[in-house]
Amino acid sequence: MCLSSRTASMVPAAAIHTCRTAIMTHLQQVLDEIVTVAAASTDRGEVADYVPELSLADPAMFGIAVALRSGQVVEAGNARVEFTVQSISKVFTLAIALGRLGDGLWRRVGREPSGLAFNSILQLEQEDGRPRNPFVNAGALVVTDAILAGSEPREVLTELLRFAREAAADDDIHINKDVARSEARTGDRNRALAHMLKAQGNLENTPDRVLGTYFHQCAIEMNCVQLARAGRFLIGARESALISADNVRRINALMMTCGQYDGSGDFAYRVGLPAKSGVGGGILAISPRRASIAIWSPGLNAQGNSKLGTMAAEMLAARTGWSAFS
Amino acid sequence: MCLSSRTASMVPAAAIHTCRTAIMTHLQQVLDEIVTVAAASTDRGEVADYVPELSLADPAMFGIAVALRSGQVVEAGNARVEFTVQSISKVFTLAIALGRLGDGLWRRVGREPSGLAFNSILQLEQEDGRPRNPFVNAGALVVTDAILAGSEPREVLTELLRFAREAAADDDIHINKDVARSEARTGDRNRALAHMLKAQGNLENTPDRVLGTYFHQCAIEMNCVQLARAGRFLIGARESALISADNVRRINALMMTCGQYDGSGDFAYRVGLPAKSGVGGGILAISPRRASIAIWSPGLNAQGNSKLGTMAAEMLAARTGWSAFS
Amino acid sequence: MCLSSRTASMVPAAAIHTCRTAIMTHLQQVLDEIVTVAAASTDRGEVADYVPELSLADPAMFGIAVALRSGQVVEAGNARVEFTVQSISKVFTLAIALGRLGDGLWRRVGREPSGLAFNSILQLEQEDGRPRNPFVNAGALVVTDAILAGSEPREVLTELLRFAREAAADDDIHINKDVARSEARTGDRNRALAHMLKAQGNLENTPDRVLGTYFHQCAIEMNCVQLARAGRFLIGARESALISADNVRRINALMMTCGQYDGSGDFAYRVGLPAKSGVGGGILAISPRRASIAIWSPGLNAQGNSKLGTMAAEMLAARTGWSAFS
Amino acid sequence: MCLSSRTASMVPAAAIHTCRTAIMTHLQQVLDEIVTVAAASTDRGEVADYVPELSLADPAMFGIAVALRSGQVVEAGNARVEFTVQSISKVFTLAIALGRLGDGLWRRVGREPSGLAFNSILQLEQEDGRPRNPFVNAGALVVTDAILAGSEPREVLTELLRFAREAAADDDIHINKDVARSEARTGDRNRALAHMLKAQGNLENTPDRVLGTYFHQCAIEMNCVQLARAGRFLIGARESALISADNVRRINALMMTCGQYDGSGDFAYRVGLPAKSGVGGGILAISPRRASIAIWSPGLNAQGNSKLGTMAAEMLAARTGWSAFS
Repeated sequence: MCLSSRTASMVPAAAIHTCRTAIMTHLQQVLDEIVTVAAASTDRGEVADYVPELSLADPAMFGIAVALRSGQVVEAGNARVEFTVQSISKVFTLAIALGRLGDGLWRRVGREPSGLAFNSILQLEQEDGRPRNPFVNAGALVVTDAILAGSEPREVLTELLRFAREAAADDDIHINKDVARSEARTGDRNRALAHMLKAQGNLENTPDRVLGTYFHQCAIEMNCVQLARAGRFLIGARESALISADNVRRINALMMTCGQYDGSGDFAYRVGLPAKSGVGGGILAISPRRASIAIWSPGLNAQGNSKLGTMAAEMLAARTGWSAFS
Repeated sequence: MCLSSRTASMVPAAAIHTCRTAIMTHLQQVLDEIVTVAAASTDRGEVADYVPELSLADPAMFGIAVALRSGQVVEAGNARVEFTVQSISKVFTLAIALGRLGDGLWRRVGREPSGLAFNSILQLEQEDGRPRNPFVNAGALVVTDAILAGSEPREVLTELLRFAREAAADDDIHINKDVARSEARTGDRNRALAHMLKAQGNLENTPDRVLGTYFHQCAIEMNCVQLARAGRFLIGARESALISADNVRRINALMMTCGQYDGSGDFAYRVGLPAKSGVGGGILAISPRRASIAIWSPGLNAQGNSKLGTMAAEMLAARTGWSAFS
Repeated sequence: MCLSSRTASMVPAAAIHTCRTAIMTHLQQVLDEIVTVAAASTDRGEVADYVPELSLADPAMFGIAVALRSGQVVEAGNARVEFTVQSISKVFTLAIALGRLGDGLWRRVGREPSGLAFNSILQLEQEDGRPRNPFVNAGALVVTDAILAGSEPREVLTELLRFAREAAADDDIHINKDVARSEARTGDRNRALAHMLKAQGNLENTPDRVLGTYFHQCAIEMNCVQLARAGRFLIGARESALISADNVRRINALMMTCGQYDGSGDFAYRVGLPAKSGVGGGILAISPRRASIAIWSPGLNAQGNSKLGTMAAEMLAARTGWSAFS
Repeated sequence: MCLSSRTASMVPAAAIHTCRTAIMTHLQQVLDEIVTVAAASTDRGEVADYVPELSLADPAMFGIAVALRSGQVVEAGNARVEFTVQSISKVFTLAIALGRLGDGLWRRVGREPSGLAFNSILQLEQEDGRPRNPFVNAGALVVTDAILAGSEPREVLTELLRFAREAAADDDIHINKDVARSEARTGDRNRALAHMLKAQGNLENTPDRVLGTYFHQCAIEMNCVQLARAGRFLIGARESALISADNVRRINALMMTCGQYDGSGDFAYRVGLPAKSGVGGGILAISPRRASIAIWSPGLNAQGNSKLGTMAAEMLAARTGWSAFS
């Protein structure tokens, strides 16, 4: 790319302007190229089918958007089509929980990759009900339980929406009630996790209360442009009212080691950026100090992450040189 | 710190010189402070006792050295006392194997965190003999087996020493034969892993041949200054004859997700830098584009990583602001 | 003992009468001795505390009763105090399910010991929702689900009570509603199992429906005399309207290999008789062709089986020479 | 059958003689029928291929022999063709170890079914090196280590052969050295187990010493007639110089719960007799107080037990009514 965004502050304003324009032009070309490659892909993964509403997603959809530190956004493909963020919501609830509880949160949930599927229950049995990390389902239920303390589910969801809207600077972000209801009807695996956590003493609220909140947080709907904008609070280059600089680094670290479930190591190896996926097919990736990236394609790989989304993230990192490791 | 090393190339030479001096001075203060804190620590972890020679290490020892991209080195404490690098050698063998085999290596070993101890054998049984990653012992045995193909153990060890010496620009790096022999006598757990891999068809050489090589590679001795220098090939800011830019990023990614065994997530969260530990008490950490860091303290934590070394890495990252995520 | 009950049919009636009297006298002495030893025991195990109602049990209680093939019953201790049979009910539901479904039942549940705790959920995850055997909780839920097919919970519980009453020839056998409600309130672990099974497609009814039935079946109350009588259908010496001779052998085999959860091997080694335990502290053991044995003492060992009950079964087997293996 | 052998001692001699003749005639018919069914079987399982010498076995072979308590033997099929007993030897080493060490043996090995494959290593890691039972490979290595204490491997093998010859009343029982060598060359999985046990402190001798003994004990060769005779010490009806009555019951109990590895529950359900299998295709089953049964067919099922052997045991039990549970 033109030059590292990190150097921007040291360079004359006119040069910056020229440079930024060149960056945007180049980025647009990269995104367009990615959309072209994605459109030609025949192996698009499998759309999640365990939530009926999700299974209706059109596997031909593909969108991508990049929000730069400067606030500018580049987009391509179906970047204005909404989808439910599903597990990407865990990044937002974690940010709220960390901000509120600090390191106290870690008494109830770990920070290690699990080596297991996102919805695995066996680790709870083996490790006395302390989920491995806040991004596997069991861990996210504990985080949601933690921020429910003393509040009504409705209040928590309102706070979460407020956080997402403020982060995205866009009030038009909502919860898709149909998807939430559909998950509630079919979420037996998550119910098993919640009852297990309750049995093991790591849930303060009733399973139903936590699950109700959880199914709704997963059903927050955004399009790629909104999600890329909402992710800017994790870029970390400037002060934020939403989160401390320390927590930015910490959440990025957790996304790097645990954000793609049992595909996190592979994602780090191929893409090199912290990211969080959702079974709706969305991926939120962060290029520290540079950009927030949202990609959406409903077909999933074996680890439950968007197949074309992962491919697109890899292409984007390769074309831009963005990496946490260089 | 004075300014990000990334911007150095854009700034007039005199300013760079002044800046660098300030950086060095500041770094020296940070390292001295770390040594002071380490010296006062009463909970220093447990020295590894399963290799008799390692159990002789003095738990009072503590050394640290930082090699900057520029080549300058700052050091403090027992930074000139040698120790065996143990599992840190896996970074070097992986660099050689990746350079030689490329992605073909991944047919035999994975790239995911294991969620298990460094010497776990159960994952081999559960996943048909494909170790989770090249940094757990089983994975490292496969990597060593891979670079042994068609060569004698002696030749491989010679190549490995040459790599380390060239990386460190220091010919005075050797293998401690006593430690190698001590490990060979007591390495039943590693023997179990090697025979298991052989039984599962993932070892081309005999277990004895691979183990013999492995025990010797682990017994490479360096002091902190040598190790920090040797790690510069992973800083990634300039061309290297030893490794491609892509492999620099990839190895850093693997160190981030898997380098501290089942403490990798915690290390990423607290330190935010890719790193590899050894049971000799050494840690090699990389601040991408900035520096290579070596820390040594023989006492280990429950995950088998240097206890004070981890603390020191956290302090260093906090004081310098170095992080892969900011 | 006087002589093996197996030979009774070959011997003149008068001799049999004399012999039987001697048997009864000897048995009574044995049971009295067992009660004396039990009364003197200071290490009585831990009363189950995860169901509030169960935790109220008096650990000083100890009862034992033996129902011979002839119908005669010998008893000692608190053999007329009622307790909830808990998992011993699984023997009755299994008998009903096997009688109704035959080998079709085994499509949904296995017949192997699990090597895990009675309430383990991890095996479901590892083996795609097919519980290891009908005596671990997950397997019993599947059996209950199977006999619920097309019926109301109330009808199933009525059938189960009818089976138990007919087996015991005693109409005064009931369900303790307080215990059932207490389990329903606190049964999060079982709820987790049921939702997991549902998620894995191995539950036809809703989890709530299966759990409601299950909690009630576990709360069937009997005293030792009633339970010993109820177990006679598994002695196998004569035709039964309740069960086929093949199923008698099969259920005994399952009790032998799986009836004491992860203590089954030890029980077989020390006692040598097929048996099923319940967390209420009851044990039903069968001496094939000879007798049905009920023992009750509320304190449990680490595997969740009655501690003194196990000791008593071992003493009884040693004193009588009863064993499936001699 | 004519009448239960248990009653024999109560009946006039002439009647016994007539009865025995009828029993023998009936048994011969049953065995002949089994051989016919076996001969017609097209799905004969897979011959073990991990030991080269074993893979040479002719899958068309099928032999069966029954040694009654009286000493009489009935045979059919290839009952005079020798095969290596493999894991059936574990019954003999266990008998020796129990006789020598008594309950002290159980400090080092458990008595519970494992729920895992015969050669599983993961349980060792999970349970600190105490194998689940003496019939899984890890447990058998510990038993062999125990009887090696203070002796040379040669002495132990001599004692073992003496035991088998005395039990069979046949001096023509030997070790097949070619098979022992073949196993030694290819036994990496067993080597892994032995080194793991050594690393965990549960092996007193060197792994090589234990493995050398173990590979030779597995290579003891018998034919069905010899094996059926050798198994009579486990019938338990009369005093034996080889073993106490208590240990007869205990070993039968262990065979019932653990003798067919992770197929033990199924075998107990279908056959109802304690038995031990070997990967050479042999099965030794005991009808307590009645008979010792040897069956041989080299093809194995998924659990590593003889496929036709298991079928034959089921047929024999069904035709004779022999069961530990009736």
